[in-house]
Amino acid sequence: MAAKALIQMALDSLDFDATIALAEQVAPYVDILEIGTPCIKYNGLELVTALKAKFPNKLLLVDLKTMDAGGYESTPFYEAGADICTVLGVSDKATMGGVIGAANANNAEAQIDLISVKDKAACATDAAANGAQIIGVHTGLDAQAAGQTPFADLKLIADLNLGVRISVAGGINKDTIQSTVQAGATIVVVGAAIYGADSPADSAKELRALVDAA
Amino acid sequence: MAAKALIQMALDSLDFDATIALAEQVAPYVDILEIGTPCIKYNGLELVTALKAKFPNKLLLVDLKTMDAGGYESTPFYEAGADICTVLGVSDKATMGGVIGAANANNAEAQIDLISVKDKAACATDAAANGAQIIGVHTGLDAQAAGQTPFADLKLIADLNLGVRISVAGGINKDTIQSTVQAGATIVVVGAAIYGADSPADSAKELRALVDAA
Repeated sequence: MAAKALIQMALDSLDFDATIALAEQVAPYVDILEIGTPCIKYNGLELVTALKAKFPNKLLLVDLKTMDAGGYESTPFYEAGADICTVLGVSDKATMGGVIGAANANNAEAQIDLISVKDKAACATDAAANGAQIIGVHTGLDAQAAGQTPFADLKLIADLNLGVRISVAGGINKDTIQSTVQAGATIVVVGAAIYGADSPADSAKELRALVDAA
Repeated sequence: MAAKALIQMALDSLDFDATIALAEQVAPYVDILEIGTPCIKYNGLELVTALKAKFPNKLLLVDLKTMDAGGYESTPFYEAGADICTVLGVSDKATMGGVIGAANANNAEAQIDLISVKDKAACATDAAANGAQIIGVHTGLDAQAAGQTPFADLKLIADLNLGVRISVAGGINKDTIQSTVQAGATIVVVGAAIYGADSPADSAKELRALVDAA
């Protein structure tokens, strides 16, 4: 039996205090706290420091979506406590290499985000060969609004058997989370299904039970 | 005779105070102050507010390099005083549309960054048709380190005669700035040539004279 899948909570608010408050509500039920891209640009490194201090036992992902200057951009976030930073699969190979190098230098991990990548299999294969620890199968918010989902891409990447973890993001909810894990996701990212619920804590608890039973 | 080209100063430091200090040194000689991508992720919105307050007569560009959630991510930066935000040409069309919409709602401008775009002519043509005011021809720092320059791409985009402004970034210095303007750049981005100089102010002054004489 495979290791249990991890649940990642996408903290997509812009507000500093609301982000901390949401993390407090869901922390008992999730494994990874994710600072979303708009949120990190809005709040800066200070939010990384604050979340790491408050939740030292949770993994912290900073969704930098780095596109250039990989090592330069990601290093301070790893040093501030990020366990995982993301870099775009559409970026230059040297950029991905820079983030992977910064991750290794800080005993942390780099995630390659396949959002908008045309040849996802080739990108994932190269990324794994270059030392990325996580491949992110990701249907962005704008693409979700157009009706897209990450599920076909998940099958494509899982079938490659790359020996890396596979993170899946893109509108996952209680109806799809178990099939996502069964299809090979080792990290499931949940955002709106939790923060859009009447009780984020109850929703997170329910999703935790579903993942652990999958 | 064409309008004078604008000079954009790329503020690439991570440090808040050093960024303000560099802006103070070069402001008399440049038209646009750019908060670089690593710098905005590190410092957050507060730096936009601070720079706008200190330099109300300069144009302020926030190099968000947005990849998803275009309107959501860029709106607070426009509202805080950004005159221009960037969005990646490799992003979803809806993402670019979101940033263009946010720009228009704030009487500001959106710049499409062609970094890592495969078909740059098609992307620039679509972006102009969709209302982007600026096309950014951009050789990233990691690609510059591998010896690439933006000059061939500038010619490609200038020859399209799209009726938008063309911004060029990628290692421009005193030896190349005049030919860049003559080749069709209406915004020239300078970073290391200024901040790496013994006197950033003297370097900016020299580049200003070169651009105005081009």
